[in-house]
Amino acid sequence: MKEIKPLVTLVGAGPGDPDLITLKGVKAIQQADVILYDALVNEELLDLAKEDCTKIYVGKRAEQLSTSQDQINQLLVDYALTHGHVVRLKGGDPFVFGRGGEEIDYVRKFNIPTAVVPGLSSSISLTGLQQIPLTYRGISESFWVITGATKAGFLSEDLYNAVTTNATVVVLMGFAKLNQIIELYKKNGKGNLPIALIQNGSLPNEKIVLGRVEDILDKAEASAIGVPAIIVLGEVVAKHQEFNLIKRELQYLES
Amino acid sequence: MKEIKPLVTLVGAGPGDPDLITLKGVKAIQQADVILYDALVNEELLDLAKEDCTKIYVGKRAEQLSTSQDQINQLLVDYALTHGHVVRLKGGDPFVFGRGGEEIDYVRKFNIPTAVVPGLSSSISLTGLQQIPLTYRGISESFWVITGATKAGFLSEDLYNAVTTNATVVVLMGFAKLNQIIELYKKNGKGNLPIALIQNGSLPNEKIVLGRVEDILDKAEASAIGVPAIIVLGEVVAKHQEFNLIKRELQYLES
Repeated sequence: MKEIKPLVTLVGAGPGDPDLITLKGVKAIQQADVILYDALVNEELLDLAKEDCTKIYVGKRAEQLSTSQDQINQLLVDYALTHGHVVRLKGGDPFVFGRGGEEIDYVRKFNIPTAVVPGLSSSISLTGLQQIPLTYRGISESFWVITGATKAGFLSEDLYNAVTTNATVVVLMGFAKLNQIIELYKKNGKGNLPIALIQNGSLPNEKIVLGRVEDILDKAEASAIGVPAIIVLGEVVAKHQEFNLIKRELQYLES
Repeated sequence: MKEIKPLVTLVGAGPGDPDLITLKGVKAIQQADVILYDALVNEELLDLAKEDCTKIYVGKRAEQLSTSQDQINQLLVDYALTHGHVVRLKGGDPFVFGRGGEEIDYVRKFNIPTAVVPGLSSSISLTGLQQIPLTYRGISESFWVITGATKAGFLSEDLYNAVTTNATVVVLMGFAKLNQIIELYKKNGKGNLPIALIQNGSLPNEKIVLGRVEDILDKAEASAIGVPAIIVLGEVVAKHQEFNLIKRELQYLES
């Protein structure tokens, strides 16, 4: 009988395109005895697993029955003890609002070894693919990534701070609160700030809407953009190639 | 004669471990006619290139002769026009303080098509590998990545803002200013805040020093940690497994 060596590896699958996982992530999948995967993970990646690998969907989708976090934590432990190497495959990076920290904490209580293979966070990668530089000398010396989905359901206190700084701001899981975010930026005199919404980034059905804080809601409605989407706020957004079209339009209107 | 199709692709090589590049990054390297690579790029990745690929080192190392940014920009254009597909291979992610935005801007002036393959930024990946979660429900709702090397040579204004927030703060290229950063955090009453320094992250000679703002300078000196290193400040740092040892030590001293 094969000896069971319990191990839980959190693996970041990246933002959607299966080619945006790391080589190290691929190797972890190939070695896995069990894979627990999320809704936002590209299922093509599961084909890389061993033939006898057990694959379990534990995704959370809005308004659908899903596995609770407590259940996921327990599944990680149970499968590690009974099957060996469990890969917890998560969209993006496991520690960027992925509750990976909680999973690791729970698994450690059972003295099961843990490992982490970082993944491309949508915050950095979806902007990069759209050739929006998060930082740029003379424009932005930092970027701030904030969740739109806090435990309490309100806008994060961090966003109230962020709006007063020069940091490029990326809001993940915040599309449902876009109205509130726009209101906040307007109140702070930032109606003219460039903003981008990116839906289904890195996938064939990717959609991007570019504009300014003051006109983005109309544009979002006109383009029927929806979740899952990230929000990018900052002068660097104007570096997007198509933003020039908007600038020319404005110059035309102003002249 | 082969037709020349100019193209410049910025590729993020990740933090150092060659397995931490993406599949898409590997494919770009395999297709490259020319590769311009940086000091922090693992040279093992160059072995993936075609046999007739031209590989050019344009790294910048402190106190060493290096290729200037203007020269790099021009090389990208010249090689694209004469050789075809140029891969600009950069450490980490091309748009996280990598001056990738400037390179893209320059290349576009010549109507040469550009593409970007994002990479793992050291900010997210080196913390991840050390199992320090950048975000954690109830502890941190955001993370803020700031350069320690501003154009003017001072601490970034963003850092003065960051110290007053609850965001997890990651400072890249800031090790030379560690004293100033510590001073700033102490002045803001954050002497007790957990902090981590990670040198040569993801490589065999990786080194980490964990502590609190008030004692990290002594620890850094005792461990002879040096550049290249990232600085991580925030309560989430206490989630590192070895941080418990520090906590127990403190409890012992206080009892």
